Amino acid sequence: MYPQPINGYGVSKVVDSDHPEFKKDDLVWGLTTWEEYSLITDPKSHSLVKIHHTDVPLSYYTGILGMPGKTAYAGFFEVCTPKKGEYVYVSAASGAVGQLVGQFAKLAGCYVVGSAGSKEKVDLLKNKLGFDEAFNYKEEHDLKAALKRYFPEGIDVYFEHVGGEMLDAVLQNMRVHGRIAGCGMIAEYDRAEPRGARNLTQIILRRLHFIGFTHRDYDHIYPNFLEFVLPYIRQGKIVYVEDITQGLENGPAALAGLFKGRNFGKQVVEVASF
Amino acid sequence: MYPQPINGYGVSKVVDSDHPEFKKDDLVWGLTTWEEYSLITDPKSHSLVKIHHTDVPLSYYTGILGMPGKTAYAGFFEVCTPKKGEYVYVSAASGAVGQLVGQFAKLAGCYVVGSAGSKEKVDLLKNKLGFDEAFNYKEEHDLKAALKRYFPEGIDVYFEHVGGEMLDAVLQNMRVHGRIAGCGMIAEYDRAEPRGARNLTQIILRRLHFIGFTHRDYDHIYPNFLEFVLPYIRQGKIVYVEDITQGLENGPAALAGLFKGRNFGKQVVEVASF
Repeated sequence: MYPQPINGYGVSKVVDSDHPEFKKDDLVWGLTTWEEYSLITDPKSHSLVKIHHTDVPLSYYTGILGMPGKTAYAGFFEVCTPKKGEYVYVSAASGAVGQLVGQFAKLAGCYVVGSAGSKEKVDLLKNKLGFDEAFNYKEEHDLKAALKRYFPEGIDVYFEHVGGEMLDAVLQNMRVHGRIAGCGMIAEYDRAEPRGARNLTQIILRRLHFIGFTHRDYDHIYPNFLEFVLPYIRQGKIVYVEDITQGLENGPAALAGLFKGRNFGKQVVEVASF
Repeated sequence: MYPQPINGYGVSKVVDSDHPEFKKDDLVWGLTTWEEYSLITDPKSHSLVKIHHTDVPLSYYTGILGMPGKTAYAGFFEVCTPKKGEYVYVSAASGAVGQLVGQFAKLAGCYVVGSAGSKEKVDLLKNKLGFDEAFNYKEEHDLKAALKRYFPEGIDVYFEHVGGEMLDAVLQNMRVHGRIAGCGMIAEYDRAEPRGARNLTQIILRRLHFIGFTHRDYDHIYPNFLEFVLPYIRQGKIVYVEDITQGLENGPAALAGLFKGRNFGKQVVEVASF
């Protein structure tokens, strides 16, 4: 096999095309891989979507208006089926998806607490993104007790980005009939041997729904999602925090930084501007 | 606190009652605890159900027509939402619930494989209960490979009774959008430190639904369940295997035997006959 560029979602401009749906100078987002120019023969397999609204930053189509936004919207509203007044917990809450889940939870009338890995991120969650509470998980010796402190009544909805010890602590704080949306498990990805979770009997005892999902199963709701989110963006009622790295050559360091929590909001790599 | 008898489901005859819904000599099933005579002041909190059909063995109301039957029916049809032709795996398949899940799966047009802990139980599954295949998990060195052998196309529905290593092996063999009904985790209950499962990232990668449930959330379907299952019992189209121990004094040994797999079918303790 020849070396391949890393797969990834990006925003691109069509340089040339003989496809009926995509014309020269069209803006698109989709799986355009980590390279300056991409040859796409099957737009469907690259999940290519034409960009119609350009009165918002184009970088948003790598985030709030792209895959992470669709993920947060489908995961929160479709997978978690939140009800007004429910208690929502989001890990990796200042990340590309988490920051949106928290804001969606507030719009849905929920109480939402987020966790992140630095004081700056915790401040962001509380002061800029409107989370009810936020905490630095690195400062907590006992995650189970920390969650008990923030959720004395228990957690109805957990948006899972972490796995491992965090998941174990959450399982011990879920309310009966709670929902866990499995979106990612970053604590597991770079381990040689996954740690997993030990408290799975809680899934049975508390009658939980633990549901893995991907935005790819929710293409049909993308138009509804845009209709929902664009007015909030234009009115400034939803905020989206991005961490923009310049230059494709700085992409690998930015990717590695995700595993160390170095990014502040959605990590974007700007390859070119147009 | 005074010593209390162990809580458990049983079949009883009403000796005396001034409750409008229960009369002397009525037969009932519910949480009547491990004792010869019970004083019940609140029938609802004991989940007391009057027995109307006595042309079947009364012991069946501790099994196929009682809590385990309701569990199997709700768990398989409501939680797992099986479709014709799907691949179903049941662990602890000769037990009180598992033997019914397998037979329900066949009635629903599914392919079903069960596992159990002895040659006799495996024979029972294949020859008497109509499972398509069955295997002795104690003879398998590599559970992941064993499941791959029985499910080359993968598993759509797993009825979970075991937890631990079995769950990890199942997670690696599930099909995309598969459902896991969490009914019990017997491998975890008598461990000082739960083992849990390490392959939970599969829940996300394969977009699984892992749903804990209890029959108690499904009281409303009990009439439908009886209507469904009684004709099959009368026609001999559903079989129910019971392991009946005589005498309350032998109850504790029978309970301990569950953790060693000593029972053969639903473990019943007969305290009195009427």
